[in-house]
Amino acid sequence: MYEFDRASVNRSLKLWLEEDIGMGDVTTMTTIPREQQSKGIIHVKDTGIVAGLSVAESVFALVDPELRFEAKVAEGTPVAKGTVIAEVSGSTRSILLGERLALNLLQRMSGIATRTRQYVDRLEGLPTRLVDTRKTTPGHRLLEKYAVRVGGGHNHRFGLYDAVMIKDNHIKGAGGIAKAIEAARANIPHTMKIEVEVETLEQLEEALAARPDIVMLDNMTPAMMKEAVQRMKQQAPHIIVEASGSVTLDTLRTIAETGVDVISVGRLTYSVEALDISLDLNERKEGGQ
Amino acid sequence: MYEFDRASVNRSLKLWLEEDIGMGDVTTMTTIPREQQSKGIIHVKDTGIVAGLSVAESVFALVDPELRFEAKVAEGTPVAKGTVIAEVSGSTRSILLGERLALNLLQRMSGIATRTRQYVDRLEGLPTRLVDTRKTTPGHRLLEKYAVRVGGGHNHRFGLYDAVMIKDNHIKGAGGIAKAIEAARANIPHTMKIEVEVETLEQLEEALAARPDIVMLDNMTPAMMKEAVQRMKQQAPHIIVEASGSVTLDTLRTIAETGVDVISVGRLTYSVEALDISLDLNERKEGGQ
Amino acid sequence: MYEFDRASVNRSLKLWLEEDIGMGDVTTMTTIPREQQSKGIIHVKDTGIVAGLSVAESVFALVDPELRFEAKVAEGTPVAKGTVIAEVSGSTRSILLGERLALNLLQRMSGIATRTRQYVDRLEGLPTRLVDTRKTTPGHRLLEKYAVRVGGGHNHRFGLYDAVMIKDNHIKGAGGIAKAIEAARANIPHTMKIEVEVETLEQLEEALAARPDIVMLDNMTPAMMKEAVQRMKQQAPHIIVEASGSVTLDTLRTIAETGVDVISVGRLTYSVEALDISLDLNERKEGGQ
Amino acid sequence: MYEFDRASVNRSLKLWLEEDIGMGDVTTMTTIPREQQSKGIIHVKDTGIVAGLSVAESVFALVDPELRFEAKVAEGTPVAKGTVIAEVSGSTRSILLGERLALNLLQRMSGIATRTRQYVDRLEGLPTRLVDTRKTTPGHRLLEKYAVRVGGGHNHRFGLYDAVMIKDNHIKGAGGIAKAIEAARANIPHTMKIEVEVETLEQLEEALAARPDIVMLDNMTPAMMKEAVQRMKQQAPHIIVEASGSVTLDTLRTIAETGVDVISVGRLTYSVEALDISLDLNERKEGGQ
Amino acid sequence: MYEFDRASVNRSLKLWLEEDIGMGDVTTMTTIPREQQSKGIIHVKDTGIVAGLSVAESVFALVDPELRFEAKVAEGTPVAKGTVIAEVSGSTRSILLGERLALNLLQRMSGIATRTRQYVDRLEGLPTRLVDTRKTTPGHRLLEKYAVRVGGGHNHRFGLYDAVMIKDNHIKGAGGIAKAIEAARANIPHTMKIEVEVETLEQLEEALAARPDIVMLDNMTPAMMKEAVQRMKQQAPHIIVEASGSVTLDTLRTIAETGVDVISVGRLTYSVEALDISLDLNERKEGGQ
Amino acid sequence: MYEFDRASVNRSLKLWLEEDIGMGDVTTMTTIPREQQSKGIIHVKDTGIVAGLSVAESVFALVDPELRFEAKVAEGTPVAKGTVIAEVSGSTRSILLGERLALNLLQRMSGIATRTRQYVDRLEGLPTRLVDTRKTTPGHRLLEKYAVRVGGGHNHRFGLYDAVMIKDNHIKGAGGIAKAIEAARANIPHTMKIEVEVETLEQLEEALAARPDIVMLDNMTPAMMKEAVQRMKQQAPHIIVEASGSVTLDTLRTIAETGVDVISVGRLTYSVEALDISLDLNERKEGGQ
Repeated sequence: MYEFDRASVNRSLKLWLEEDIGMGDVTTMTTIPREQQSKGIIHVKDTGIVAGLSVAESVFALVDPELRFEAKVAEGTPVAKGTVIAEVSGSTRSILLGERLALNLLQRMSGIATRTRQYVDRLEGLPTRLVDTRKTTPGHRLLEKYAVRVGGGHNHRFGLYDAVMIKDNHIKGAGGIAKAIEAARANIPHTMKIEVEVETLEQLEEALAARPDIVMLDNMTPAMMKEAVQRMKQQAPHIIVEASGSVTLDTLRTIAETGVDVISVGRLTYSVEALDISLDLNERKEGGQ
Repeated sequence: MYEFDRASVNRSLKLWLEEDIGMGDVTTMTTIPREQQSKGIIHVKDTGIVAGLSVAESVFALVDPELRFEAKVAEGTPVAKGTVIAEVSGSTRSILLGERLALNLLQRMSGIATRTRQYVDRLEGLPTRLVDTRKTTPGHRLLEKYAVRVGGGHNHRFGLYDAVMIKDNHIKGAGGIAKAIEAARANIPHTMKIEVEVETLEQLEEALAARPDIVMLDNMTPAMMKEAVQRMKQQAPHIIVEASGSVTLDTLRTIAETGVDVISVGRLTYSVEALDISLDLNERKEGGQ
Repeated sequence: MYEFDRASVNRSLKLWLEEDIGMGDVTTMTTIPREQQSKGIIHVKDTGIVAGLSVAESVFALVDPELRFEAKVAEGTPVAKGTVIAEVSGSTRSILLGERLALNLLQRMSGIATRTRQYVDRLEGLPTRLVDTRKTTPGHRLLEKYAVRVGGGHNHRFGLYDAVMIKDNHIKGAGGIAKAIEAARANIPHTMKIEVEVETLEQLEEALAARPDIVMLDNMTPAMMKEAVQRMKQQAPHIIVEASGSVTLDTLRTIAETGVDVISVGRLTYSVEALDISLDLNERKEGGQ
Repeated sequence: MYEFDRASVNRSLKLWLEEDIGMGDVTTMTTIPREQQSKGIIHVKDTGIVAGLSVAESVFALVDPELRFEAKVAEGTPVAKGTVIAEVSGSTRSILLGERLALNLLQRMSGIATRTRQYVDRLEGLPTRLVDTRKTTPGHRLLEKYAVRVGGGHNHRFGLYDAVMIKDNHIKGAGGIAKAIEAARANIPHTMKIEVEVETLEQLEEALAARPDIVMLDNMTPAMMKEAVQRMKQQAPHIIVEASGSVTLDTLRTIAETGVDVISVGRLTYSVEALDISLDLNERKEGGQ
Repeated sequence: MYEFDRASVNRSLKLWLEEDIGMGDVTTMTTIPREQQSKGIIHVKDTGIVAGLSVAESVFALVDPELRFEAKVAEGTPVAKGTVIAEVSGSTRSILLGERLALNLLQRMSGIATRTRQYVDRLEGLPTRLVDTRKTTPGHRLLEKYAVRVGGGHNHRFGLYDAVMIKDNHIKGAGGIAKAIEAARANIPHTMKIEVEVETLEQLEEALAARPDIVMLDNMTPAMMKEAVQRMKQQAPHIIVEASGSVTLDTLRTIAETGVDVISVGRLTYSVEALDISLDLNERKEGGQ
Repeated sequence: MYEFDRASVNRSLKLWLEEDIGMGDVTTMTTIPREQQSKGIIHVKDTGIVAGLSVAESVFALVDPELRFEAKVAEGTPVAKGTVIAEVSGSTRSILLGERLALNLLQRMSGIATRTRQYVDRLEGLPTRLVDTRKTTPGHRLLEKYAVRVGGGHNHRFGLYDAVMIKDNHIKGAGGIAKAIEAARANIPHTMKIEVEVETLEQLEEALAARPDIVMLDNMTPAMMKEAVQRMKQQAPHIIVEASGSVTLDTLRTIAETGVDVISVGRLTYSVEALDISLDLNERKEGGQ
């Protein structure tokens, strides 16, 4: 599993710290002595999968490069209530400045990894790949897609720029499935894939004739999907089949058993339940002694 | 109810468009004719409170100043499945470029307004004010706090910069409640309030002696809260009493009935269930004719 | 006394260095050998209060992280002509690149601290708090408000965002003092104070009925102020009384003796006389030896 | 007289508005109805020279492009107390958002133009050119140098990048006046001038031999300056002579009468007394009627 | 052929204007009257293919939204010496401010389109696609890849982010071709293609076994390429074959005739000969009359 | 020879890395183990002059501050095919992330230095200075002008801001050569030079009467230039004479022998042939062992 691009994420972290701190933390600057040192213990208060430790580390490093951050578990570890997942030590002021942002991110990313793992577990023994969508929180796409990977899922395209995805509106705009696929293929790099969304078996036949790289079966019944998968495996075994549309934990395995290669689930990143994570300060002592 | 600051929000919207569009929307640019015009109909697919229409309008204006956006309902309107809440018309390409971001924001903000309204409804007839916390999505604080207002709630402080909030860690750092309050008061502007968090009645007495502007009762039982409120109304009627800690829809009214002035609820912006909202393109026609 | 937020100030310092250096310092780059090392001695040429040493340190650190900066006096120290207040050593080129900006800031901030101290000294023995205003130099608000604190003063609000300040124009806009205060209170966070400006005793009575947190007596005569203070102490002892309007060194004590809690003085940051401070290079030697 | 570069200045104005407004103007947004329209009358409260009207116009245009700004006098006009110098009309909220920044800039820039005019008036009938220095407020250099031009002065170099200025430290670093001038000339564009600072007649002779474009006589007595000017007019009539160092209104004419071509005065932009300028709102009416 | 993303390009144009204009165009601001109006005639001085007209239009629009720009030929038109390709009219000052940047971009982009057309012409009658590489000028990738499309070429990937390209170093790093392809496929989105570079027929066999989407034949002789293409068409007809390495105008057709699908040519954007284009001002008249 | 301003260049390098890396290098992140270490050998594949080593170093330092970069030759060294000019060692992933940008810049800058040296060599024994123009690649001006210096050339002005350059359009706009020069001189700093472009001997006479600092002879024949130089040396020996217009390697010496002081050549930075430079990875080993 690979990490996100550090430079991009750090640009966001700086803006997010600025959002919270503004012209300064008036409480910490007036009540905590400058030289006070502490250790912050970060622990989970529920059961889930941890994600985002290196992001929390970056938050504290941006606030104060002299803070020392130590992860106590690896990314993707299943944890139970009470598990200490990281410690951060150094200036009390600095720890308090970064605390809220670090926790907000850890909670959200772990929530996404936890939900993803629930879905992935339902696919046990099947070759089906679970993927996310572009329904991510604005500004958080790299982090949320990374959290999906931590949870055992895979990613769909990262944005409008890295794959062609022909939906209903593009088909109508271009004047048909074949025309849309041809127009895209004639203009995009040969290094880029074309995915097309179909809702009926007639559309599927039209799509297959135009040779896309991926076909997405949108909101079909399992029976219809099964039929679609069979036709594709016969006619065009190189084309990837993706299923999409209102997939839930309960319907996931049934859909997978139709033989589709990939199932995309918006809920992995949309309306996520954050994992409860806290930071406690202790082992407080005066610095330099 | 007041709006958010436009300039701040527009800075975020530009970054969020860049996140999604990157080097370009390869699908739309290759399949949709440049001159094609459409109307996008934005409608809800569930029941809730609408929030964020002016943000969606800004998204489309940033993509293409010639798009025309028309809100069909007012912010804060309760809507049912199928209600058209806005229309946007102009270049099909431009509508598709802005669609995902506009919907992501409308869905999230309406989700927050919807949940806030559920909580506010439980307080009917009581003078208690429902407020949010700093547990907002990084980068979205202005929008999420605005959505709370749209739902009928109020806001807690906006960041670390606009009020002093003395928590357990600050009390320990400063060497006691009285010392922390005194240190803050001696240094901050006289235009800024001091809030202190107490967990016991003993702490409450110590806090009252130091005359904060707001006392937050943290994780107290309703009985203890009632006792705290009574003491405060006798000794220091000018001090605002806030209750906080694991408040749910079910416990909200009981807490309010203890007589506290304000109840803060992290869940208003944390782990929010988005409201399902879609955009359909229709009335497609060639431009300039 | 607390410091300013480092991250905010560093963002400004980078822009200010860019303003002065542009595409490069053509004199230093062509006349000073790259490896030459020097020590710069920063000394004052007049009598005053030193402020801004850590800002000067940041300027040099941004130009060249290898420069060593050593403050020779503490912030807020009264100094006489000739006092060495800091030394910076390392690459001669780097010292010369940062010199002008570091001095410009030290001179201006020390000028503000010096003037503030003159005002504060007139209040000796009185409990009155001296505060600044928003009449700061655009782009320099954090630094100038910090310099006021170094000089022994306090701050008024930091911007339009951290307290409500109802002035004549807002009163007219809202349709009266009571309406303005009510409108603000109904919408702002309970963590934020409301200040209202009154010019007559009639306005004072109207204001008191609406329970603001602070009343500013604008341009009243000392006699009128005294009367206002007495009425407030009787009717509303929790409300802070602030005096404002054309306060000078000569009128300051008389105003304070009316019993007001706070006096705000625009001239602390407006039309400031800079303190003369210079940097001399010496102990020049070739590097690497 | 030419204007400043608009794009550069607008970048600063956006940052300065952000400094003041932060997350929003909580007073105006809660007390002033959105649709209220007003006219703001900008008038001076003292005697001076007006500068910065187009900057104030830009401030209001950035806040709200629909505000209408009308200058009532030309830049550089001498005005007396009470003169209306501009009007701005449109949304009351928008006028109040921009008011403080627009006034802060007008006051400071007019203060600089006013002082510059005082100096320029002392040079009446003489060919001497009065110029500023790099002792400008960080972030305000373009505006302050423009204000000097409005007052009738001229500019010295704009930064470290647009002319070579060899001072004492560079001479020491390079190993002598001749070496410093030669090193600079060998490396800089032929389109750039070299100025050298001399403190004695011996240094002057050494400098003249190396053919700089400008010689600055630093802190010389009038008698010594006269001698220096005579030598230069004989030996090197093409070289510009500049006088500098502790020039005051009282010594200015005497220095000019030594025959120097240019006198540079740090006080034009350093420790400036702002001109008192106010904005009154009136002719308030509801919009759309 | 599709256009580049406007928002991305405009961010670059603003920086490039700032690079040239800095603190202001001292010539134009002092010699050209503010109200003077002109028409600038943009014409080519050589033979080639025009590209970049809409970029030039954006440059002038950013300098002054009131300038009117009119393209006289379509993008991609072959032109001969003397052809007027566009006119821009309005403020003389504004035209001169934008002239250099607009011409620099037109010249470079037209140079790329011109060279690309030369290569494309050599492929007449063949189905081979000519593509560019990542050897573009830093900061100019979107514009240069667009210019290749204008000239009739196609694009390779846009950056490191939109396709996997396994080169020699990755193969060594991963421990073999198969391992590298497997590692990539296991982790990247299913919407992304994998290209692998091979130098020998043995490597080709190893690569084909691992089923990449594209194979690049690097620096092979035409005979070896022919053999490689034949093997691929037999074993894996869905895999795209790309040829690369020191391709020149002279060798291009021979390589294409080996049957490869795509030929990538670094020289399309590397070491480009700009097309000579000038702007003449005429029809100068005073404005407003 | 002096270097470019580091801070300015680093701002560009960050944007250029972002252009190439976008949301991440999907190949390197998935195929190269995180802990793998390598050494990259940078060598030239042609004959030329090396320029840009410190820029390449900055690229790698921005990607990963722990990479070690070691230049093996000095800037400006003439090298032959095969010469190793630098090595970079550390994380393989980091080396691959920075490779393309570092090479693109080294190739382009070395190409400029190489061409400049060819021109400079033709001037051997003559005092004539070879200079560049503003026809640089947008965004690359500081680096390209530095590369000209590395090659032994000199620079013309850096932008529109650091010298007055009166061309045909300004002369027409101002109403004549004398008027244009007078208008500029009256308004610009006395620290700035005025250059005027003339095409005929009549214009030269008019220009000399107005005493510019530099006269540019535009597109004159060598005979006409010789006549112009003679007149200038007689009438105004302090004025610098610059020749410009379609200068080639073949005409350069003839032009220089007319006695002009400076010859400006657009082709030094326009349509440059990059020098072929590669990076080979070797001595690969696992880290931490």
